[in-house]
Amino acid sequence: MDSKGKHFTPETLIIYAFLRNTCCLLLLHKRSRTMEGKRPTPSILPFFLLSLLILTPFADCRKKRLHRPCKNLVLYFHDIVYNGKNMENATSAIVAAPVWANRTALANLMHFGDMVVFDDPITLDNNLHSEPVGRAQGMYLYVKKEIYTAWLAFTFVLNSTEHQGTLNFLGADPLMNKTRDISVVGGTGDFLMSRGIATIMTDAYEGEVYFRLRVDIKLYECY
Amino acid sequence: MDSKGKHFTPETLIIYAFLRNTCCLLLLHKRSRTMEGKRPTPSILPFFLLSLLILTPFADCRKKRLHRPCKNLVLYFHDIVYNGKNMENATSAIVAAPVWANRTALANLMHFGDMVVFDDPITLDNNLHSEPVGRAQGMYLYVKKEIYTAWLAFTFVLNSTEHQGTLNFLGADPLMNKTRDISVVGGTGDFLMSRGIATIMTDAYEGEVYFRLRVDIKLYECY
Amino acid sequence: MDSKGKHFTPETLIIYAFLRNTCCLLLLHKRSRTMEGKRPTPSILPFFLLSLLILTPFADCRKKRLHRPCKNLVLYFHDIVYNGKNMENATSAIVAAPVWANRTALANLMHFGDMVVFDDPITLDNNLHSEPVGRAQGMYLYVKKEIYTAWLAFTFVLNSTEHQGTLNFLGADPLMNKTRDISVVGGTGDFLMSRGIATIMTDAYEGEVYFRLRVDIKLYECY
Repeated sequence: MDSKGKHFTPETLIIYAFLRNTCCLLLLHKRSRTMEGKRPTPSILPFFLLSLLILTPFADCRKKRLHRPCKNLVLYFHDIVYNGKNMENATSAIVAAPVWANRTALANLMHFGDMVVFDDPITLDNNLHSEPVGRAQGMYLYVKKEIYTAWLAFTFVLNSTEHQGTLNFLGADPLMNKTRDISVVGGTGDFLMSRGIATIMTDAYEGEVYFRLRVDIKLYECY
Repeated sequence: MDSKGKHFTPETLIIYAFLRNTCCLLLLHKRSRTMEGKRPTPSILPFFLLSLLILTPFADCRKKRLHRPCKNLVLYFHDIVYNGKNMENATSAIVAAPVWANRTALANLMHFGDMVVFDDPITLDNNLHSEPVGRAQGMYLYVKKEIYTAWLAFTFVLNSTEHQGTLNFLGADPLMNKTRDISVVGGTGDFLMSRGIATIMTDAYEGEVYFRLRVDIKLYECY
Repeated sequence: MDSKGKHFTPETLIIYAFLRNTCCLLLLHKRSRTMEGKRPTPSILPFFLLSLLILTPFADCRKKRLHRPCKNLVLYFHDIVYNGKNMENATSAIVAAPVWANRTALANLMHFGDMVVFDDPITLDNNLHSEPVGRAQGMYLYVKKEIYTAWLAFTFVLNSTEHQGTLNFLGADPLMNKTRDISVVGGTGDFLMSRGIATIMTDAYEGEVYFRLRVDIKLYECY
């Protein structure tokens, strides 16, 4: 970067520094509106003017800080695993398992190796019988022998008066933790190109047949 | 945010408002080049100058509007499912199924629970015998008991004079809809860090052995 | 775009051109810091001033060029496939296979159709017995009949003094190539909202039981 300075006259450097710092200033102001609601520092502008004077155009603006989420949704989904007797109500089924297990009951060893395909109703509250606003479709795997841990890859297909579109999720789900974060890696419709994270919580767990997840979606990229 | 004003002199506020509004203006101009080809509003600049005068530096610039796609590709891929007799030609195979089904034929109940692994040729037109420009590799699941619905997770590995690189896709595929949107969540090579959406259409469907998908890829992030 | 000009006075056009070009200039400067460490062109500013004079506000700023990575990690992970005899040490298991194969040994035809679920230790060096800094959790598929080719979808769950958080990966893995690029599609914790690519290399391969992958992660979006 130093070698660049040699080609610039002082005037161009001043202009460059100004533009550069303007960029940084704008970024910093955006950054000061942090996720956690911390107070923004009021001393950015003087710092900016100072930095303009001392002509430090080489500050690194690459790392971005996150704003507050541009969209926030809390949704629940309900999974009823097929157990050989509940075909009518089941919303999911074991479709793969390691060689020591079958597909009617979840496997030994913390269900390690089981793969479940699901089409689960999504509701606005924690009531399985509430009017669904969409379906959660995809798969989960049990991935660990020593402790219950799942891995999720699924889509929220939302279809209500409020939201029309899909959100795609991916991530590890260490079930025994109270909250777990997974990635929102894309979306379509109302959520076109969205990205963010989702914090999931096990809201209910009944035997090995029913569970309900609370999903707190925070989108940081909206269009 | 209000508390910040107390620390600023009028002059700094004016400078801040100017910079802030400049940022907004630039974003708005970008936004006005919308996907749908709508006419941009010609009244942005007067609005900007007005907003500068009345010093409202707190407008929200966070939500971004999408440009036209920076890259557009239309490709076809061809899936021939193994059915016990077509090993030579098959490009995919059922590898998992629920306990009530087998892996030679797609399952009852709208194929619910079937998982298919594929390595399908990609062509520029709808002819299975055209020179492939790459391979679609990954998996699909049938996820719903009541209506044919798939869930897709796959990669386009493109290898032609025009494109060298990969694109990764994820999303729900309600087969019975004429068009379905899924996410392009990343890419490598020529498509390094790309994001966007893909609109898929069933271009042909023959028995339960062959289908062809038309994929209309719209990338909104290119590098 | 042309029609817009009719609504603008020369003054507003000059202002617009200036703002537009400022935007472009800033982007270009960012672009000049390329991944490959090429020297930035020192002639951007004159070009900018010239472009300002000739009032070409319609240049396309949409395509972004990548900076150097904002974060770089090199990690190894170790996969020990269950083969019917190594339950104690196994970190992964075949859970799905085509109809012509079983789940104790990898299938014929380049393992086509095999699906493996894993929970593999991640280390900082190539030693299986080094202290793990996390776990790689997810799945891989063998997707091709003619040559060994895998498809990966997994999460790095990092838990060390240096890194706390997850990274999510997706992509095709043509094993026989020395290096392969896959996508980093998202992250949480220290890697919140991260994106980038990962270059993977087979660092060791022993029989059909053990392999070790070197993963060179380059994040281009950090927060």
